Amino acid sequence: MKISARNILAGRIVALTKGATTAHVRLELPGGSIVTASITNEAVDELGLAVGTEASAVIKASDVMIAVA
Amino acid sequence: MKISARNILAGRIVALTKGATTAHVRLELPGGSIVTASITNEAVDELGLAVGTEASAVIKASDVMIAVA
Amino acid sequence: MKISARNILAGRIVALTKGATTAHVRLELPGGSIVTASITNEAVDELGLAVGTEASAVIKASDVMIAVA
Amino acid sequence: MKISARNILAGRIVALTKGATTAHVRLELPGGSIVTASITNEAVDELGLAVGTEASAVIKASDVMIAVA
Amino acid sequence: MKISARNILAGRIVALTKGATTAHVRLELPGGSIVTASITNEAVDELGLAVGTEASAVIKASDVMIAVA
Amino acid sequence: MKISARNILAGRIVALTKGATTAHVRLELPGGSIVTASITNEAVDELGLAVGTEASAVIKASDVMIAVA
Repeated sequence: MKISARNILAGRIVALTKGATTAHVRLELPGGSIVTASITNEAVDELGLAVGTEASAVIKASDVMIAVA
Repeated sequence: MKISARNILAGRIVALTKGATTAHVRLELPGGSIVTASITNEAVDELGLAVGTEASAVIKASDVMIAVA
Repeated sequence: MKISARNILAGRIVALTKGATTAHVRLELPGGSIVTASITNEAVDELGLAVGTEASAVIKASDVMIAVA
Repeated sequence: MKISARNILAGRIVALTKGATTAHVRLELPGGSIVTASITNEAVDELGLAVGTEASAVIKASDVMIAVA
Repeated sequence: MKISARNILAGRIVALTKGATTAHVRLELPGGSIVTASITNEAVDELGLAVGTEASAVIKASDVMIAVA
Repeated sequence: MKISARNILAGRIVALTKGATTAHVRLELPGGSIVTASITNEAVDELGLAVGTEASAVIKASDVMIAVA
């Protein structure tokens, strides 16, 4: 599958916490940046996600803001 | 200003294209990952963004998806 | 690629309009429902989208609202 | 109420799960496609949603991505 | 139509700019706060929006971030 | 920090409910409008949010829809 989302950031899952229906997944990128995703528990199970899994953060360009100091 | 968004990824702007009302900004993270943001032209002007500017990509955790190969 | 997005709706592109940087793509689902996506022109080119292309609309569950009459 | 969202997909609720504060609602479209929405428990109560309710999935065009196989 | 979005902020349109495919609409709330929406030109035409129109800004709770000074 | 988000609405927190991983925060704007945000519990703790805190709702323009009666 190829997707229109402009951001597909490859990394490795370093933390994963499940809530009642929503899970928080932390992905470490090659340079050390950490990306946090809030996804359904169902998706975590279906994709077989766990700490150590190689995965990508997928983000639509219209969901990214820019900030300056 | 401190913000609730879980993702504040520091980098440097490497490309910037303005459209009629919407601009596309590309940010390079320390490890070489590229993040693309689609923001208003107005925001580009107001923040004084240009190629070379040190900036951060700000992304709400609920806007991040996870993909596996 | 398998993605955490809960909604992957298969259909066929029935209309495609490019703007300055943003394109609008209309996808018809099997039952006749029409889904409209606003994506970058760049993504249209990269995925080779055109009227008639078999494609899917991918939508994160947290971006779907529910309305009743 | 008329809304600017380009996607208003009529269907019927076929599943509904409440979490601590967030609920997952599954809507079946006429052609059999299933749309999953993650909304607040509060909205579920206020709109009186239940399995069998005729409802629509409302999605902003800028939240829809396109994927090809 | 009743919608699950937690935020329906009533106001009046005070500015409207159309781009190639995307329009920017500015709404003034009773207390003077200004809300800016980026929607399709098509939606502007369909809803008959113009400066002076009484309208509401509709925002899903999961799209709102909180910031402190 | 200056951010590209077009909407930074100043107000005061009037309600705050934590779920398993997600919290709902209600902010009152000067004119009495209420904005509801769904953010992580983690962000609530990190920003030290509580009822009475002066805070702003930050919303990207592309996440705002317009509705007319």
